[in-house]
Amino acid sequence: MSVEQTTPRTGSTETHEPPAYVQTGDKVKVLNRLRRIEGQVRGLQRMVEQDSYCIDVLTQVSATSAALRGVALELLDEHLHHCVRHAVEDGSSAEARLAEASAAVARLVRS
Amino acid sequence: MSVEQTTPRTGSTETHEPPAYVQTGDKVKVLNRLRRIEGQVRGLQRMVEQDSYCIDVLTQVSATSAALRGVALELLDEHLHHCVRHAVEDGSSAEARLAEASAAVARLVRS
Amino acid sequence: MSVEQTTPRTGSTETHEPPAYVQTGDKVKVLNRLRRIEGQVRGLQRMVEQDSYCIDVLTQVSATSAALRGVALELLDEHLHHCVRHAVEDGSSAEARLAEASAAVARLVRS
Amino acid sequence: MSVEQTTPRTGSTETHEPPAYVQTGDKVKVLNRLRRIEGQVRGLQRMVEQDSYCIDVLTQVSATSAALRGVALELLDEHLHHCVRHAVEDGSSAEARLAEASAAVARLVRS
Repeated sequence: MSVEQTTPRTGSTETHEPPAYVQTGDKVKVLNRLRRIEGQVRGLQRMVEQDSYCIDVLTQVSATSAALRGVALELLDEHLHHCVRHAVEDGSSAEARLAEASAAVARLVRS
Repeated sequence: MSVEQTTPRTGSTETHEPPAYVQTGDKVKVLNRLRRIEGQVRGLQRMVEQDSYCIDVLTQVSATSAALRGVALELLDEHLHHCVRHAVEDGSSAEARLAEASAAVARLVRS
Repeated sequence: MSVEQTTPRTGSTETHEPPAYVQTGDKVKVLNRLRRIEGQVRGLQRMVEQDSYCIDVLTQVSATSAALRGVALELLDEHLHHCVRHAVEDGSSAEARLAEASAAVARLVRS
Repeated sequence: MSVEQTTPRTGSTETHEPPAYVQTGDKVKVLNRLRRIEGQVRGLQRMVEQDSYCIDVLTQVSATSAALRGVALELLDEHLHHCVRHAVEDGSSAEARLAEASAAVARLVRS
């Protein structure tokens, strides 16, 4: 979800810290999705409070889960295209970034 | 999400409308879980706003997905034990309730 | 996936054993699906042996997983409509069958 | 499923074809896993043929799904560490390989 810094990395030892978030457009898009998901979760609370039929609640839970999964896939896609790519090109932390991305996929698949 | 009304159904036993929510304890538990999930989703927004490292965001998305899935499984468990059981015992809408529960599981598994 | 016995249950102590498989049509359908899945898994082995491109292998793994999930959903659907329904109507083991079905859904969702 | 050929690529460095499978150790490991999964699928057929209890069949389906998912994660891990890394280092097809890996993750998560 992040990558190159907007300010140049001046070659200090901070080079190897995980790169920060950058693409403003992506960030706005992800935040909008998360706000919609927050709205869905609040809607679920209202449904339960108002004694909605359980199957209707479940349908909304499934929709919310799918939306959350969509955010995860977008974050991962950005991460691969930016952080991982950058690390491999840079060479300094390629192995660590690849292992970490792979572990994140495993957690996601199992969540 | 469940079964008999807390207010007595003054109608006849033929009331075939989907039963409303009842078990107050379960309702409170589900609401608490949903509120925690809402907090998790807001935490995700803060992480993105503060340029958290993408893998850390992803880990939290996976945790939130797992929590949502837990709510779904609890709702489904209650639904089977109450609505579905009630419908089968009653006999009036067993087939419809079973088909509906089965479809909800399929949506859940694919979400 | 199974249910009522074709031979009448004569009220012996065997009544509470899990009901055996019954619907021949469903059984044939499930077996055919499983045979296709076995073919898919063998196809995967050939792909790996022949050094197929990893993404192509992964695509086939995803297709095989989806097919397996389809079998699971069909088995569960039958189970709800037959075993669980029967147990609730019978009254003898409703609670046990419902809890067991619910646990099976949880395993499936997490697999 | 991975990267450099065991036989030297005698062509130029512009060989942009997808790299073939290489690491013999990984290949053997993946094949062994797939053979075990094939055995599990055959075991499922026997269970259905012998009228095993539906919940027991479902439990085995879940175990087989989990095993298949394990293979997918291993393939993906190798793919990231070899094909994707190689493509990024090489620079020639980084974008295509990253997009393709990301799409494979999405299919896997949804399967």
